[in-house]
Amino acid sequence: MDDARMRQLLATARVGRLATLAPDGRLHLVPICFALEGDVLYSAVDEKPKRPRRLQRIENVRAQPDVAVLVDHYEEDWSRLWWVRLRGRGRVVERGREFELALRLLAEKYDQYRQRPPPGPVLAIEIDEWRGWSARG
Amino acid sequence: MDDARMRQLLATARVGRLATLAPDGRLHLVPICFALEGDVLYSAVDEKPKRPRRLQRIENVRAQPDVAVLVDHYEEDWSRLWWVRLRGRGRVVERGREFELALRLLAEKYDQYRQRPPPGPVLAIEIDEWRGWSARG
Repeated sequence: MDDARMRQLLATARVGRLATLAPDGRLHLVPICFALEGDVLYSAVDEKPKRPRRLQRIENVRAQPDVAVLVDHYEEDWSRLWWVRLRGRGRVVERGREFELALRLLAEKYDQYRQRPPPGPVLAIEIDEWRGWSARG
Repeated sequence: MDDARMRQLLATARVGRLATLAPDGRLHLVPICFALEGDVLYSAVDEKPKRPRRLQRIENVRAQPDVAVLVDHYEEDWSRLWWVRLRGRGRVVERGREFELALRLLAEKYDQYRQRPPPGPVLAIEIDEWRGWSARG
């Protein structure tokens, strides 16, 4: 799958799954909403009921910045399946211009964030590998 | 989220995302179709165009059996979001009774597999940790 197609698919995809590695070596997975700016993928910690103050994904990225994100499409017609897998290095952004940029991009993409801006922090992932697959080849 | 609710959500969920760790320490993510039998989650390698003979997830599990699976629900009403995250140990099953059982369970759940049985191998994950989250608490 070429670069333009992967970027096109990611521009409209609403959810991805972020994998990080805990300091003890355990794999951690969580769904994320995201926005893309060039080769940086932004997501933000949102306010959710019963969410613990201490967030595993943030602690993991601080200790081990290598992360992966999978964005895929499922439907019952399996000839229409596709996925895009990104690898990169995560940074935790808590304030400043990049923090504001990320919140703006997320609010542009998600009406839910416009109505209720996420408190953050922001997770910025510098993508260094794009891979895509499509059932249609 | 209680055990019964997590099992109920997984019984009808059509896709999950499997995270494995490569021998070189890289995170690997792939979408999977799956069927659950007690505390074992089964998925199978399907025949797909352009899929390489050598499958990363299978090699990873052989080298490092600790895996994670995330099954989540996304929709635009964020009060209805949920996810279930499983951790366990993977085994590669290439033939025999458990292989047949897995293919039968997958065929019962997916019409696509009834029409075109996957060649395998099967990945069996012995779940040792269930965690669930729902926006509704």
